[in-house]
Amino acid sequence: MRASRFFISTLKEAPSDAEIVSHQLMMRAGMIKRLGSGIYTYMPMGLKVIRKVEAIVREEMNKAGAIELLMPLVQPAELWQETGRWDKMGPELLRVKDRHGRDFAIQPTSEEVITDVVRSEIKSYRQIPLNFYHIQTKFRDERRPRFGLMRGREFTMKDAYSFDRDVAGMQKSYKIMFDAYTQIFTRFGLKFRAVAADNGAIGGTGSHEFHVIASTGEDALVYCPTSDYAANMEAAEAVASGTRAAAGAALTKTSTPKAAKCEDVAKLLGIDLKQTLKTIALTAEEDDGSKKYFMLLLRGDHELNEIKASKVPGLAKNRFSTEAEILEVYGCKPGYLGPIGTKAPVTVVADRTVALMSDFVTGANEVDFHYTGANWGRDMAEPAIVADLRNVVEGDASPDGKGVLAIERGIEVGHVFQLGTAYSESMQATFLDENQKPAPLQMGCYGIGITRILGAAIEQNFDDKGIIWPTSLAPFQLVLCPMGMDRSELVKAETEKLYNEALAAGIDVILDDRGQRPGAMFADWELIGVPHRVVIGERGLKEGNLEYQGRRDTEATAVPVAEALAFIKGKLAQ
Amino acid sequence: MRASRFFISTLKEAPSDAEIVSHQLMMRAGMIKRLGSGIYTYMPMGLKVIRKVEAIVREEMNKAGAIELLMPLVQPAELWQETGRWDKMGPELLRVKDRHGRDFAIQPTSEEVITDVVRSEIKSYRQIPLNFYHIQTKFRDERRPRFGLMRGREFTMKDAYSFDRDVAGMQKSYKIMFDAYTQIFTRFGLKFRAVAADNGAIGGTGSHEFHVIASTGEDALVYCPTSDYAANMEAAEAVASGTRAAAGAALTKTSTPKAAKCEDVAKLLGIDLKQTLKTIALTAEEDDGSKKYFMLLLRGDHELNEIKASKVPGLAKNRFSTEAEILEVYGCKPGYLGPIGTKAPVTVVADRTVALMSDFVTGANEVDFHYTGANWGRDMAEPAIVADLRNVVEGDASPDGKGVLAIERGIEVGHVFQLGTAYSESMQATFLDENQKPAPLQMGCYGIGITRILGAAIEQNFDDKGIIWPTSLAPFQLVLCPMGMDRSELVKAETEKLYNEALAAGIDVILDDRGQRPGAMFADWELIGVPHRVVIGERGLKEGNLEYQGRRDTEATAVPVAEALAFIKGKLAQ
Repeated sequence: MRASRFFISTLKEAPSDAEIVSHQLMMRAGMIKRLGSGIYTYMPMGLKVIRKVEAIVREEMNKAGAIELLMPLVQPAELWQETGRWDKMGPELLRVKDRHGRDFAIQPTSEEVITDVVRSEIKSYRQIPLNFYHIQTKFRDERRPRFGLMRGREFTMKDAYSFDRDVAGMQKSYKIMFDAYTQIFTRFGLKFRAVAADNGAIGGTGSHEFHVIASTGEDALVYCPTSDYAANMEAAEAVASGTRAAAGAALTKTSTPKAAKCEDVAKLLGIDLKQTLKTIALTAEEDDGSKKYFMLLLRGDHELNEIKASKVPGLAKNRFSTEAEILEVYGCKPGYLGPIGTKAPVTVVADRTVALMSDFVTGANEVDFHYTGANWGRDMAEPAIVADLRNVVEGDASPDGKGVLAIERGIEVGHVFQLGTAYSESMQATFLDENQKPAPLQMGCYGIGITRILGAAIEQNFDDKGIIWPTSLAPFQLVLCPMGMDRSELVKAETEKLYNEALAAGIDVILDDRGQRPGAMFADWELIGVPHRVVIGERGLKEGNLEYQGRRDTEATAVPVAEALAFIKGKLAQ
Repeated sequence: MRASRFFISTLKEAPSDAEIVSHQLMMRAGMIKRLGSGIYTYMPMGLKVIRKVEAIVREEMNKAGAIELLMPLVQPAELWQETGRWDKMGPELLRVKDRHGRDFAIQPTSEEVITDVVRSEIKSYRQIPLNFYHIQTKFRDERRPRFGLMRGREFTMKDAYSFDRDVAGMQKSYKIMFDAYTQIFTRFGLKFRAVAADNGAIGGTGSHEFHVIASTGEDALVYCPTSDYAANMEAAEAVASGTRAAAGAALTKTSTPKAAKCEDVAKLLGIDLKQTLKTIALTAEEDDGSKKYFMLLLRGDHELNEIKASKVPGLAKNRFSTEAEILEVYGCKPGYLGPIGTKAPVTVVADRTVALMSDFVTGANEVDFHYTGANWGRDMAEPAIVADLRNVVEGDASPDGKGVLAIERGIEVGHVFQLGTAYSESMQATFLDENQKPAPLQMGCYGIGITRILGAAIEQNFDDKGIIWPTSLAPFQLVLCPMGMDRSELVKAETEKLYNEALAAGIDVILDDRGQRPGAMFADWELIGVPHRVVIGERGLKEGNLEYQGRRDTEATAVPVAEALAFIKGKLAQ
């Protein structure tokens, strides 16, 4: 490609609504252009990257035996009503009426349509397993779209759906997709991590998220550096190590004026925060209006994990108790609650770590007073429920017993789900087995946020000059920057020669023939993030050399003209 | 591709709502699947064809210097309001409100968005000419979607938009696109014709349609076999040849009871239909409610062209006169009207052919009476207006004077427009010229109905067995049909060998390893329309032969195994 035949439009300053670096750099590099809130035109430079992402995804999906089709954007409401998602999805689902007043959804995902396709196409066990995918525009009417392509409303997603006869088959299909995703993200050249995830609203029996590692990532990823264990924060299990020490101190009521927080109590008493107990009062309201009260206990330095809490029996639907409820049930204002003397209707739920504590400090259910030297069994009943209630922290024991946990930040770019029969049962997607007996199809679904990859790749790879694309995703692998091509026949000739050789070698090369000054030209390509650059100048040529510089290099390397192509090929292969 | 790893689903019968052959065959071949009215899932077999269409379009657009980007599907109403199309488009434009109640359009085309992109990107004459295109899903809420992909609601279109500094530049860009389209349809391997078209509602100064020739086509294409002249029926000029003969007969009022139509009059009087005059009474109503009356005259065997009529001064907005208006203005019921004695407020508009007639027969403005021997100038005033009012017919003189016209049927698959400044003026898309003077950009727009190509290609290429794809568009170029691959080691070995050789040669080959009976296997591939087939059977192999059969061939050809690949390559190159 010649730059004069392409469209390059860079900006010195990012628009003020671009809050994060990937959004800023994509706007400045002319990769995207805002059309409306969370809606972007993919400009030629950005589209080139999207196509590279798509090509790698498509190749690996095909290799893994998935079959590409294309499902419509505008989908009849009837199908979404069959699964109940027409009502469940809320305002994120963009709804539209056609000229006849019929309801349609603009697809945010395609479980319903693929299940509809498959229920009419698959009759027999002989036709499965099958895995269909498409790469298609999606729309999710986010409440607060932001961060450019990271949380847009219109975006491109690859979504795949597998159909199997039984759970073992589904798990096999799932494993094939997991491996394909690993291959895809490896080919992208990005540092990534697959973590076990909570299945959440989509239902089903198992799932993993694929995250691009970036310090700016929204999600905390938990992993064990000495084993395979990895999970997101919602799903990472916090295990309690060791056993409870015997009581060593006497229970003592202590004045702790104005110290309602664990941090304040520890400071006041000159003790470790780890010796304090954090008390969280929750109310679970039943459909009939009746209420149940739960006192959750965490170690002072730990944080509540709401997903885990909601899995405690009776807490599926919970909220923080109001101050009025707390006064009524505990006879004390919040800040000084504790398990000592707590009785029905309150159920005490202790985190696993808390259940192993002894000689701890806890609220006295009296304003401005705490107990020190508190012990389970001796000073109060053992907790009614012991459960994993907290977020893990660095240094926790790994649940697989093979080391201690570390935490890093990531950006979710892929998700694989074992759906089971959630959709096939509600939509009657069945097949006949060997005995002509119908059974629901076992499904899996597998998504990759194609356009989101761009944002995530940049969050992981940038510097103060701009983007640093991995070679596999770069809009162009190589840029040729001739110095004064219009003035020097020698520069022109060598540039054209190298350009044609690179094209013939299948290198995705751009020749900057715009006639810009060197400074502006280099700044553009550093901003755009082309990973390999060759400068062709008369002075160098007279010594027989070109100048190569990788995007992360701090200095250029002189390369003999005759060896240039081989040198570049070597760099591209790294 | 191995058929066992692909998804093949054929039907013996087409669904009853498939009215035309391409729709029937695409459904039967498992290429598309109906999701809703005018909305289809592109199944794997159909998507493969779409991708081939897209690839050819993309290559030729890039070669022609157009630059690909991707504009959003969901577009803010504000832009459509700027050009007035938000109101003008009617219910064909699918409108949607987001969660905040803001209005959006699901794009049926992207003039507004590209003009918005360009008005902020293009500042100077130095940045143009530019031509941007995208290949994107479109939605048009057709009143009566039908014919499968031929008139769907959701479809894929390639739309390109050129931006130039002046009319000469725009015409140059237009010519480049015209030539690219010619190259694209040539590469498709389809018989096609480019015809001059009326610009219609989109505005602008010139346009051509590209039609795939098919006897089932909805449009009549007019062309001159001995010259370059070609136009669609709306735009084809009807010229009147020769001069008016002198009056030879006397004007005679003749009783023509119950003969209100030209055909009946000619039959009754025993004369040629070409001697009669067809009278059409039109009313043009002004915005202030005032009415003007026009009597249009055509030769009895000719048909009114409403587009041409609407271009007659005063007839921009017209309708057929009501019977009450006719009685009031002409003093006679319809069926017996004629120009003799007609006076204000009626304006007589004669078709060019009519203006040259003499001794003709026309209504006497009296029920059951006509005049014979009528002549202009002698029996009535010369017509107030002479204009081209009619559709051309086979045998008419070509407007370029280089032969006579022929007519064939076509399916519109592409359209190129000179838009001029219609959009750039309403949206203030200007550039600064050498003198820093702003001027509106001169635009062109260029569309190809990607998914419609499939339907049109089939309408042109099918037989009673199924589709006959041109090699360039076929889902697979070559199918290998082994006979008893699971029983014969020889068949298996030779099949695998040829399959791998074909793959290595870059041939898009499918190996039918499904283990079907030969009859069912052949029927599937004939229905799907793969253009080249090789049968590998044990009996043939023992004689050293494979069997080749082209989709249009009536018999198979024995080909020595050693020559098979070269033979196939030769066929593919034809």
